[in-house]
Amino acid sequence: MSGSDAVRDAVREVAGRAKQAARALATAPRDQKDAALTALAQALVANADRIVAANTEDLERGARTGLAPNLADRLRLDEARIGGIADAVRDIVRLPDPVGEVVRGSTLPNGLTLRQVRVPMGVIGMVYEARPNVTIDAAALALKSGNAAVLRGGSAAESTNTVLVGLIREALESAGLPADAVATIDPWGREGVQHLMRARGLVDLLVPRGGAGLIKTVVENSTVPVIETGTGNCHVYVDASADQAMALEVTMNAKLRRTSVCNAAETLLVHADAAQTFLPAVLSALAGQEVRIHADARALEIARQAGVKAEPATEEDWYTEYLAAEIAVGVVDSLDEAIAHIRTYSSGHTEAILTSDLRAANRFTAEVDSAVVAVNASTAFTDGAQFGLGAEVGISTQKLHARGPMGLAELTSTKWIVTGDGQTRP
Amino acid sequence: MSGSDAVRDAVREVAGRAKQAARALATAPRDQKDAALTALAQALVANADRIVAANTEDLERGARTGLAPNLADRLRLDEARIGGIADAVRDIVRLPDPVGEVVRGSTLPNGLTLRQVRVPMGVIGMVYEARPNVTIDAAALALKSGNAAVLRGGSAAESTNTVLVGLIREALESAGLPADAVATIDPWGREGVQHLMRARGLVDLLVPRGGAGLIKTVVENSTVPVIETGTGNCHVYVDASADQAMALEVTMNAKLRRTSVCNAAETLLVHADAAQTFLPAVLSALAGQEVRIHADARALEIARQAGVKAEPATEEDWYTEYLAAEIAVGVVDSLDEAIAHIRTYSSGHTEAILTSDLRAANRFTAEVDSAVVAVNASTAFTDGAQFGLGAEVGISTQKLHARGPMGLAELTSTKWIVTGDGQTRP
Repeated sequence: MSGSDAVRDAVREVAGRAKQAARALATAPRDQKDAALTALAQALVANADRIVAANTEDLERGARTGLAPNLADRLRLDEARIGGIADAVRDIVRLPDPVGEVVRGSTLPNGLTLRQVRVPMGVIGMVYEARPNVTIDAAALALKSGNAAVLRGGSAAESTNTVLVGLIREALESAGLPADAVATIDPWGREGVQHLMRARGLVDLLVPRGGAGLIKTVVENSTVPVIETGTGNCHVYVDASADQAMALEVTMNAKLRRTSVCNAAETLLVHADAAQTFLPAVLSALAGQEVRIHADARALEIARQAGVKAEPATEEDWYTEYLAAEIAVGVVDSLDEAIAHIRTYSSGHTEAILTSDLRAANRFTAEVDSAVVAVNASTAFTDGAQFGLGAEVGISTQKLHARGPMGLAELTSTKWIVTGDGQTRP
Repeated sequence: MSGSDAVRDAVREVAGRAKQAARALATAPRDQKDAALTALAQALVANADRIVAANTEDLERGARTGLAPNLADRLRLDEARIGGIADAVRDIVRLPDPVGEVVRGSTLPNGLTLRQVRVPMGVIGMVYEARPNVTIDAAALALKSGNAAVLRGGSAAESTNTVLVGLIREALESAGLPADAVATIDPWGREGVQHLMRARGLVDLLVPRGGAGLIKTVVENSTVPVIETGTGNCHVYVDASADQAMALEVTMNAKLRRTSVCNAAETLLVHADAAQTFLPAVLSALAGQEVRIHADARALEIARQAGVKAEPATEEDWYTEYLAAEIAVGVVDSLDEAIAHIRTYSSGHTEAILTSDLRAANRFTAEVDSAVVAVNASTAFTDGAQFGLGAEVGISTQKLHARGPMGLAELTSTKWIVTGDGQTRP
């Protein structure tokens, strides 16, 4: 047996055990699932020392191997962060169980009753980068929605994730649920992911969460169903009719609330009729927050007149998700031009219009083809918790199955239940 | 440029034009879409002669190249069948428009209003085998749900499909909609399908409909989102407590109503306590309809005693979707054994239990993981029209996005529309 075959067999063994465990999860009542989650929240707090010790190992290894500072920050856990993760689990306990919800139902003319009911997907694979909080979030959401989870959490977090997955499995067992419902394939590294992506029949859904490269690899190589998440090249368009004070506040919030997250704005488009008054104000404000500005010719000229430093935007800039204090700024002559620009360059995550013109608002929301379109509101609201869905497993930018923030309902499928008294079809 | 590059460019050109046309479809009001569909229904009837002439060409070519008789039958169109196809289009006209339906909505504590609204997927690719009625069904369903469609209808039907796609495009133009919203890639044959499957960013959803080989190829090679349809290894389980007269009628209907369709039963499982009385009756009835019987050891012995011809079932039989007058028959000692058998061998399409025991009914519907589970009803009801969804584009056997019959709603995605008056996120 070659090394690759051994890895394949090992990954399929983990996924197969998860599939077996998923059967128990699928019919487990809410009380039992919530008991496991409550036990997990308690165990996280009670074992904070062990978690921090393992995390320190990961951070030290990261320091030796040159892990970037922003990645080290996402990897780092301390007592406060662990408390926050435990609180998030308790929030999930409070959410209603999506399993069993009747989505549609009817009685047919022949007396058959029909119910379309939410059921778990089965086994959910999660492939993400070294963020240990995602390990707990993903496992807790999968568990609450009656699914098993197979996790690949990134080599840089391996020691931390080993402890966390151990705690999850103990919590499952303490509630009488099978430990195999949550497992990691981290020991098999990147090669393991290749086999997880092709474990058709064992994995019902694969959710990649992380950088564009990771997501592209998973989308292009999976034979199991995938939901593409997270790339957010979000736009703010300031219409001619916008309330400019509002537009300034929303633009600053969308760009700067947190620059490293997918709902942050990356491009600002301004209608030519508003540009002479709005751009000097917003460019000065952005520059004042040390935002690097990439401007098209007209915006560049206005920046120059306003004494704001800016550099010419390249074609590449319009496609870029900076995830940093940088922004591309362009002037458009019409709503049509703004919509066309967004259609060309957007990743389909979130776009906002600032306007007081009802027709412009309606056209923007109808014609912009993104997961979330906002009128006079910050792009930063695209988030499962903000939308009232509870926690989220990611933000889908594809159109199949789920679009936008993915909460518990998005981790379920449905099943039709037909009940009769002997009906046959003519 | 190699031949393959030329095919890729040609297919991407067709898909790109469809994507462009999809924008007009997405915001077209129902009246306009219905006008195009009504014009299409009229054109089908008015051009029946042309369609039959093209179909005759296909049939003659098929006769020369050895097309199987059952495939020739599916390919054949006459005036009556064309009338039926036109009626199906008129049925779609009468269905409500799924686009714009508000799925969820709320007002957040900060005053933001949230609506999750159905929107078209965009461009839907359909790959199917030489059944010209699917050309019209698929195009009509795509159009009604605001989508563009790129069709690959099988070389054996190429002449027929050329005429049909021409009529669809004329109907679109007659209603002021872009002709490019429906196009065929038949001229580029199988190689064209390879490029359609990889046209990420141009095709939003690919639905393969046809034999298991076609579906497997599409599922395993696509980089665009796919919905797996149609394989139906459906089971009927007769519980110890079943009303045996009812069970006999339902079994015969499930197996014999139409043997070539995916909702036909392929395996009959009988509880040991019912086997001695039920099997002689059902096996005699099946044999009386010239059904070939593959039986496990116990069923074989009962068949022998009843003087019914049967042969030993192989492991392969339990996996087989016969799509013919054949059935696999087994005896199980418990509901658990029946459920375990179905979990192992089923394709996840439709399974029925015959029982008068409420607990057995509830366990079967909860624990059998298929798109449709039926209690005391024939598997033959799994059908979009029977379920009251109107026409169907196929029956999904996967869990992502759609499960079971796919009607108009299943050809849509959703979009979140957020409306505020300047809200920013703290």
